[in-house]
Amino acid sequence: MKLLRVGPAGAERPALLDDGGTLRDLSGLVPDVDGALLADDAALDRVRAAAASGELPALDAAGLRVGAPVGRIGKVVCIGLNYHDHAAETGAEPPAEPVVFFKAADTVVGPHDTVLVPRGSQKTDWEVELAVVIGRTARYVESHEAALACVAGYAVAHDVSEREFQIERGGTWDKGKNCETFNPLGPWLVTADEVADPQALGLRLWVNGELKQNGSTADQIFSVAEVVRYVSQFMTLYPGDVINTGTPAGVAMGQPEPKPYLRAGDVVELEIDGLGRQRQELKPA
Amino acid sequence: MKLLRVGPAGAERPALLDDGGTLRDLSGLVPDVDGALLADDAALDRVRAAAASGELPALDAAGLRVGAPVGRIGKVVCIGLNYHDHAAETGAEPPAEPVVFFKAADTVVGPHDTVLVPRGSQKTDWEVELAVVIGRTARYVESHEAALACVAGYAVAHDVSEREFQIERGGTWDKGKNCETFNPLGPWLVTADEVADPQALGLRLWVNGELKQNGSTADQIFSVAEVVRYVSQFMTLYPGDVINTGTPAGVAMGQPEPKPYLRAGDVVELEIDGLGRQRQELKPA
Repeated sequence: MKLLRVGPAGAERPALLDDGGTLRDLSGLVPDVDGALLADDAALDRVRAAAASGELPALDAAGLRVGAPVGRIGKVVCIGLNYHDHAAETGAEPPAEPVVFFKAADTVVGPHDTVLVPRGSQKTDWEVELAVVIGRTARYVESHEAALACVAGYAVAHDVSEREFQIERGGTWDKGKNCETFNPLGPWLVTADEVADPQALGLRLWVNGELKQNGSTADQIFSVAEVVRYVSQFMTLYPGDVINTGTPAGVAMGQPEPKPYLRAGDVVELEIDGLGRQRQELKPA
Repeated sequence: MKLLRVGPAGAERPALLDDGGTLRDLSGLVPDVDGALLADDAALDRVRAAAASGELPALDAAGLRVGAPVGRIGKVVCIGLNYHDHAAETGAEPPAEPVVFFKAADTVVGPHDTVLVPRGSQKTDWEVELAVVIGRTARYVESHEAALACVAGYAVAHDVSEREFQIERGGTWDKGKNCETFNPLGPWLVTADEVADPQALGLRLWVNGELKQNGSTADQIFSVAEVVRYVSQFMTLYPGDVINTGTPAGVAMGQPEPKPYLRAGDVVELEIDGLGRQRQELKPA
């Protein structure tokens, strides 16, 4: 299923994009698409049955804002340098174990919402990423099979990053990862049963129409299953948590001087096979 | 006022500790102590008036669990190496600007709850910290006065840290800061009007009755006002967010070998002048 949330920011309603491409209202069936729903197999089965019946009310998609496909996100865990080609372009050795950092859940916005260039920013950069949405608590998970059983689904994430704040201002990377609007998510959460192989997804990103990133999750250093297993040794993952699993090569930071960092007025588009497409215009904060 | 939340984990009710030391039930007046309450001056005034009237129902404190004093915390921003004596003991230069890292809100537990030593941990360490609770959105705040106007109050925080996970496992510090139960908070939120000078508070921590940390917020490299102002340049702080403002000297990591890291069975107690006292027993995860 393709689950999503539509409507004004902070007042989104749950919805479903059916196999015919029609948007269907789920608000009569479930209160939201959130950790509580994703952890509830019976509720998900009711949604699935209602979708199959064809009786869910259609929504007019025209002019309707699309929000992030998960509400009340607990935490956003991010994996750094997780593609061989991206580690190479940044001059970093491929890490021996996953690099973990955080984005606050309040950085998450809808897939087509405005992204704000922070005040004083000279190095706002793009990163298309496969987001993993957790549906079952993951705590000291031992096997890759058990790790994948904790995954509710997948979505497109844009891990917007300010490289000066991230790298040149002291301390951890978090300082350049948590500016407001820095994590567009969606348009859909595609449930895990419809993603045959999370390690065979093409990811692409364009800036002002020019293709900048064109990678595949096949190039991930640590697979989705390994990332979930590994992270669960250090922290507990709860339903509604999100993991951004890293970006392939092609970010501004990896390009020759003058590096083409983002400016107000730029338009970024990104997509992942089967998970939909985002489009953001940049404006000043 | 001393605001708190009492009752079973996940089902706490709002309460107040009055000037006579009696616990008073606030659940007839406000739904919770959370960002919504802390941002609502009228609601806080109603609580203040009800407390002054002496008519709030008393609660029997005997056997009642104390939860974290803030519910639905958005994010926990942490400042590293923020005391001159602690920077010195870790061998680090005092940072030129604040070091920022994160704890997930799901690490927050009550002040007397069990702290779990992570599986495989050899270096679980203690850190007493002054926590700042945000009551007003802080975004590109320019002055120290405006920064302090965003502070709803203060509380004791225990920034439990696994040093091997933090420092020796690659990537950022976050890996050693987000194990479950790693952020006891409370017992109370003391509203900012009752903390005359946040830069003149003694902080102390004992392990198994032995005094280990004995510092003062006067030794902070970056004051509370500067921390709020600074952080608001990189991310937006919302009502109900928490900032852990760093720890003074005396952590296990700073001591001679064999360093006395925490083990299951140890008891940690910590307190800050006017903000109350915590006590945790350590158990294996």
